[in-house]
Amino acid sequence: MEIGQNIKIAVDAIVFGYEGNKLNVLLVKQKFGIMKNQWALVGGFVKDDETLHAAVNRELKEEAGIKVSYLEQLYTFGDDVKRDPRFRVISVAYFALVNSTRLFLTADSDAEEAQWFPIKELPPLAYDHKDILQVAHKRLQSKLRYQPIGFDLLPIEFLFSDLENLYCTILEKEIDRRNFRKKMLSFGIIEETDNFSPRKSGRPAKLFRFKKEEYNKLSEEGFLFEISFA
Amino acid sequence: MEIGQNIKIAVDAIVFGYEGNKLNVLLVKQKFGIMKNQWALVGGFVKDDETLHAAVNRELKEEAGIKVSYLEQLYTFGDDVKRDPRFRVISVAYFALVNSTRLFLTADSDAEEAQWFPIKELPPLAYDHKDILQVAHKRLQSKLRYQPIGFDLLPIEFLFSDLENLYCTILEKEIDRRNFRKKMLSFGIIEETDNFSPRKSGRPAKLFRFKKEEYNKLSEEGFLFEISFA
Repeated sequence: MEIGQNIKIAVDAIVFGYEGNKLNVLLVKQKFGIMKNQWALVGGFVKDDETLHAAVNRELKEEAGIKVSYLEQLYTFGDDVKRDPRFRVISVAYFALVNSTRLFLTADSDAEEAQWFPIKELPPLAYDHKDILQVAHKRLQSKLRYQPIGFDLLPIEFLFSDLENLYCTILEKEIDRRNFRKKMLSFGIIEETDNFSPRKSGRPAKLFRFKKEEYNKLSEEGFLFEISFA
Repeated sequence: MEIGQNIKIAVDAIVFGYEGNKLNVLLVKQKFGIMKNQWALVGGFVKDDETLHAAVNRELKEEAGIKVSYLEQLYTFGDDVKRDPRFRVISVAYFALVNSTRLFLTADSDAEEAQWFPIKELPPLAYDHKDILQVAHKRLQSKLRYQPIGFDLLPIEFLFSDLENLYCTILEKEIDRRNFRKKMLSFGIIEETDNFSPRKSGRPAKLFRFKKEEYNKLSEEGFLFEISFA
């Protein structure tokens, strides 16, 4: 049976990182083609014998030399039949998080350069990548409230104030720090370590750790993580 | 630029309907090919110049003769490269609701027959459609709690007890009817009409109506619909 279909399928990854009170996005400069020298999301065509997940992980490795700490399918963009000016391309977009933007980025293959950009200071993007990024940004903001994905953006051990700042920064809101602390600690999914922050100024502060196994166990028992703001 | 990719893209629709205290799924019997006479989800290949949404609406019309009251993208299935034994097919699955399964179904084109099946009494399904259906079923159960999609499964005017039964049936739980009623009415998104149910037995009961415009307005202002169960 011959299916006369002429549509190509690609994957794209929207990778978020958090550093110095800024939400960052990973972009790569295109090396070839009509979008040469333009910034774009990491991505490329799926190989015939490759799963979608394998394709996105391969592109992350090839174009930026990184592994991510969280990856999930976001949405498939196929309602604009002219989103790629060359030919019809449907893109399965993935949402990814890394726990440090200090990762060493190594552009390879199709990418000229890989770089983190603060979400407030983005360059013009190729194709419809600005729209895709907006969908991912909203997903991040919404997910932060009902899934503990914030920890995938922080180092293994973090200051409580870092966690607070991450919520304020990404949700673009002031939070009631006292209530936030009380609520977050009440879940029983983070714990104080014996380590202190290495910062020089002020009183040394305890470092915290996310108890992922505990969260997974509680989740299975029906626990719902939820952070709401007034 | 030539992309040597040999992957086809399809859409599939998981259509849920509710009738007589049962959650039903729309299936079609395959007319052609290696899955001939097997039951499957409504679906088919995307045309080159057709958006994904247009493709799924076309398949719903061609294979079952229906329009749905709610449609959203569910997930793209492309991690099993052998999910179609003929060749590689990636499927963008859509989640759909109809407000009556008394709709007249008219199988056409690729479908031999279209029929509603109670979710508890499904026949064997073609391809990986059982897995796709499971993902959709979980999405329905989860969405029912934080989005008023239950109304898309009911007629425009409904008995309050129908709404209660719908929640009990789909979530497979007993609910505290008094609390449920109080909570649901407190949102201000449903109203009593002047009409009574046409049932013969017992005291006639008022019919209710979902105020969709009011819900949309409240949503924009930050209102969160949420039904939780003990």
